[in-house]
Amino acid sequence: MSVPKASDVLANDLRERILRGDFPSGTALPPERELVNQTKMSRTTVREALRILEVQGLVVIKTGRSGGAFVQLPGGESVATSVSLLIRGQQLRLTDLLETREAIEPACAALAAKYRTDEDLAALDAANNTVGDLEIPLEGFLQANVDWHLAVAQASHNELLTGFMSALSQAIYSSTENTAFVDTDVRQTTYRAHKSITDAIRAGDAAAATRRMTKHVHGYAEAVVQVEERTEITLD
Amino acid sequence: MSVPKASDVLANDLRERILRGDFPSGTALPPERELVNQTKMSRTTVREALRILEVQGLVVIKTGRSGGAFVQLPGGESVATSVSLLIRGQQLRLTDLLETREAIEPACAALAAKYRTDEDLAALDAANNTVGDLEIPLEGFLQANVDWHLAVAQASHNELLTGFMSALSQAIYSSTENTAFVDTDVRQTTYRAHKSITDAIRAGDAAAATRRMTKHVHGYAEAVVQVEERTEITLD
Repeated sequence: MSVPKASDVLANDLRERILRGDFPSGTALPPERELVNQTKMSRTTVREALRILEVQGLVVIKTGRSGGAFVQLPGGESVATSVSLLIRGQQLRLTDLLETREAIEPACAALAAKYRTDEDLAALDAANNTVGDLEIPLEGFLQANVDWHLAVAQASHNELLTGFMSALSQAIYSSTENTAFVDTDVRQTTYRAHKSITDAIRAGDAAAATRRMTKHVHGYAEAVVQVEERTEITLD
Repeated sequence: MSVPKASDVLANDLRERILRGDFPSGTALPPERELVNQTKMSRTTVREALRILEVQGLVVIKTGRSGGAFVQLPGGESVATSVSLLIRGQQLRLTDLLETREAIEPACAALAAKYRTDEDLAALDAANNTVGDLEIPLEGFLQANVDWHLAVAQASHNELLTGFMSALSQAIYSSTENTAFVDTDVRQTTYRAHKSITDAIRAGDAAAATRRMTKHVHGYAEAVVQVEERTEITLD
């Protein structure tokens, strides 16, 4: 028989109330001593329950005089954390990541062509200008590359696809971190591919955006498996 | 200035050691009193750290004489939990889910056609036989439908896509839970669509599997937005 832990019971109850909207985003949960009074649970149990909600990204605990457990609605970060743990824990193969990118990114590009705003286009241009700047060190290029791919996801205005892409972004960063592979030629090819996809997104041409993104992600996947000796993804 | 919490410091340290392989799956972390001795942290702090790892799916805490914190490598479950929280917390639109399925499922079908085993095919057939059984109540049909879609993801042998699809499965279940929509006709159409996709997977025909899955998921998406008045996904 498994007896539920008191802190889980309290965490579940508070979680339901947060998700139902009883405590709107930005407001504080009842203070610790009040929860202790209400529930007759120990102070340690109440604290543990609040910490569980913090780990799940549902509250931010601030200490000090105006402290408390402040509600926030879970965004993509906790998805990103759990995907990172999955990648590291299961020692996922690089091909898992490449196949997943080939599934998700063309769909993001198609939706971006439909729903992009002027702000989205500005973010895409800004990231790709950095991608094309050959003076920038490798880390800057890799980050700008991830930023551009994330900006495409954001331009899809689909929270779920954006959440998945954010979750993959750290893995994309580390799987592309290969000085031998990323030479001037690769940087220029990347810049041009991004440029032509951005053009299709700007023109609202979903078919071209899909086709070009498929080619870009697939071409990268083909190139990387030729030079890459690591078959597992390493994340810090 | 934000001072890191002692329990976070300990949880991070233990997490790194688990992911590095210092504590293989199935083994127990050092007992509480030993961690207290080693770290000079309080018993409460040590417990809190272990609970954090439990919430993240890295250990299972068993109480009693042969109890302890037993290491498990994180699988798709914690991804599923965080995606459920994202869907509920952000009140994701039904179209977010449909667009994401249209991105991921055809890719899963294509990979399944490449990598499926005899076991995978048996799982697909078993789930779809239940889908086609008109005697079964709505809940049974819905669960078998989700099972078949998950079996396609599993047959892709891509842990990341499988993790994403598991994460979506609860949302797929509840978004299809509509008695008015799921009539005998819908059940038979679903069965036949699954059958023809399974045939393509069995034949190793990735192109046909992609095309048929695209048509199936897209056709469903078109049909559901016509009858569905809810625009938000509700999860329990």
